Amino acid sequence: MEETRRTLGLFSVLCVSLICINLSFSPVYAFYGRRQLRFNPDGRFKILQVSDMHYGNGKESQCADVSPAELSYCSDLNTTAFLQRTIASEKPDLIVFSGDNVYGICETKDAAKTMNMAFAPAIESGIPWVAILGNHDQESDMTRETLMKYIVTLPNTLSQVNPLDAWRYQIDGFGNYNLQIEGPFGSPLFLKSVLNLYLLDGGDYTKLDGFVYNYDWVKTSQQNWYEHTSKWLEFEYKRWPFPQNSTAAGLVYLHIPVPEFSLFNKSTEMTGVRQEKTCSPPINSGFFTKLVERGEVKGVFSGHDHINDFCGELHGINLCYAGGAGYHGYGKVGWARRARIVEAQLEKTIYGRWGAVDTIKTWKRLDDENHSLIDTQLLWSKNTIALVLYHNIDH
Amino acid sequence: MEETRRTLGLFSVLCVSLICINLSFSPVYAFYGRRQLRFNPDGRFKILQVSDMHYGNGKESQCADVSPAELSYCSDLNTTAFLQRTIASEKPDLIVFSGDNVYGICETKDAAKTMNMAFAPAIESGIPWVAILGNHDQESDMTRETLMKYIVTLPNTLSQVNPLDAWRYQIDGFGNYNLQIEGPFGSPLFLKSVLNLYLLDGGDYTKLDGFVYNYDWVKTSQQNWYEHTSKWLEFEYKRWPFPQNSTAAGLVYLHIPVPEFSLFNKSTEMTGVRQEKTCSPPINSGFFTKLVERGEVKGVFSGHDHINDFCGELHGINLCYAGGAGYHGYGKVGWARRARIVEAQLEKTIYGRWGAVDTIKTWKRLDDENHSLIDTQLLWSKNTIALVLYHNIDH
Repeated sequence: MEETRRTLGLFSVLCVSLICINLSFSPVYAFYGRRQLRFNPDGRFKILQVSDMHYGNGKESQCADVSPAELSYCSDLNTTAFLQRTIASEKPDLIVFSGDNVYGICETKDAAKTMNMAFAPAIESGIPWVAILGNHDQESDMTRETLMKYIVTLPNTLSQVNPLDAWRYQIDGFGNYNLQIEGPFGSPLFLKSVLNLYLLDGGDYTKLDGFVYNYDWVKTSQQNWYEHTSKWLEFEYKRWPFPQNSTAAGLVYLHIPVPEFSLFNKSTEMTGVRQEKTCSPPINSGFFTKLVERGEVKGVFSGHDHINDFCGELHGINLCYAGGAGYHGYGKVGWARRARIVEAQLEKTIYGRWGAVDTIKTWKRLDDENHSLIDTQLLWSKNTIALVLYHNIDH
Repeated sequence: MEETRRTLGLFSVLCVSLICINLSFSPVYAFYGRRQLRFNPDGRFKILQVSDMHYGNGKESQCADVSPAELSYCSDLNTTAFLQRTIASEKPDLIVFSGDNVYGICETKDAAKTMNMAFAPAIESGIPWVAILGNHDQESDMTRETLMKYIVTLPNTLSQVNPLDAWRYQIDGFGNYNLQIEGPFGSPLFLKSVLNLYLLDGGDYTKLDGFVYNYDWVKTSQQNWYEHTSKWLEFEYKRWPFPQNSTAAGLVYLHIPVPEFSLFNKSTEMTGVRQEKTCSPPINSGFFTKLVERGEVKGVFSGHDHINDFCGELHGINLCYAGGAGYHGYGKVGWARRARIVEAQLEKTIYGRWGAVDTIKTWKRLDDENHSLIDTQLLWSKNTIALVLYHNIDH
């Protein structure tokens, strides 16, 4: 009896220790958002990015930069129709609204009503969707905080106001979160995140030198959160069971482009077009370099500059614009509104089951007559060989 | 007796608690380097920055970029003489050697011997001195780690290999440390650091895209260390006794300039000259933006580009080159070798005692016939009024 009690006692101590160890290794944040997204049985996961809808008052909103013939009938409903059409053609597994979803200033008096209209095609499709904020969303009757708090209550969304451990980082902004996409059912990686999405609030405007207004940057607090989350996910990916020997692939969605987008100017360096300058923050907060240091993220997907839609690769990371999807925001006459699709494909392991992410491809869908699919490109492949170059340095 | 024991017990618990609280608030790092530097009784503290000595084999080293007449007799000894002359004129309170102190490649076979010669004028002066590394220091028979480990053993130096809490940040490089300069004896701030120096290892070369060699950047780990140290110092500055309502001023010394140095191109934007392009890291790790976010640092002092010696102000932070001090490194014929002096002056409080830093000035000393003192400028004043500017933003 005494021995049984002692064994039980020892067992309890062991259990409590294991729970403690597990808790210390597994902060709640790492599980928040898990088991909600999963690769398909065919080893694919497709993301539709819709940027800069600039939704206004629906039927009453006038379109910007369309031909005089279109102007007579064009409204936000054209944005809705484009979204419905693209969802029907692409059948994505996730829809990401990457900011400037609603266009507040002097237009929208009821942001909730506008968001209901703007996100309706995604909600009705039954496909999981998420949204982050741009620099314009807060311009009507909701703050950035209340906007995100409203968005998370909408049907089928996986959006989050902020990570559960936001207090640890005193995180700036609203709508910073991580989505983890697990391997298909039946694959060894069905309990691991094989593709990590980081959605960040790029803020709106910032004050420098007292009163200078300019675009905001990804703050230290957000970068700290990214770094810790990414390190935790790497630890999880590499640990028992089915430990992996590399890091899972990652993608970042962020409304305002990081300053490195501005480095692409020659058409030979990019797939897609630049038709306006990059309007990024006036100073570089090093988020891109942090991504290079971590080596996990393969693409940063932004909006903001509606008539740029290129992807360019810098130090192993693709910087991609979505191109504007909304008719109420500025555009270019004769240059169709568009949306970007990203598709990740898993590799077949030697046992014939799905393994890690093998390739990431991207293309765009245009809202033209043929609903054209353009600029298909391989963004990243697991087996890419690094360039060999040397620089001479004297300083 | 029982009561005495109980009281003693309670007292011990109280003491242990107080020690615990104090330890938790006062990590050892915050005290490392303290009580070693102090403002003078006249409320001043003067720092002499000597950059890019590129010291070789003393008398045997040939000078670069001097006139044919000088070439016949010029050697590292001219660098030594310039240093002795400047120390004698300026009588600084601290000497900072900001990297590329020794020039390894194909020249120096014994780095310890070279460093003994290079730092000799500072050691002999009895003035506290510190050194950080440039991108060339490790090119002979010592690694960056052994170089710093040797430097800290030399007389009168306050250099450190790395902060005591380096393990917390898994800090990159060697020679990252903080110096705290306290108020003068007798002033209310005699136990507080009123000027914080951050000396950072800017690294040497880095690999990007597999094998591309280029200059290194201030890593996330170093930025995390800076942020935590700076926040701790702010907490200390604002706490009892004599709590201050602002942050103490800070200065950064770093060999390779941050990329923002390259933004200064017009002579109207700077004091001093640009005669070559800024050779900073190929990507921006956001250290400058972190300094803007913290709002503590008033100047970043670099070397590396020997024939630039300007100071330019960006978002409240001065980016200053020292200009090359060494004759063995490249220079420009007819453009004297030089060194930068920074002087902080405390303000008089209403009680007639020394308070916080009021102004920070800088100038340069040239190794010309008259030992000219040029480009004296006010870098920062406590009472500067911010600019008022507005930008129009459409995106």
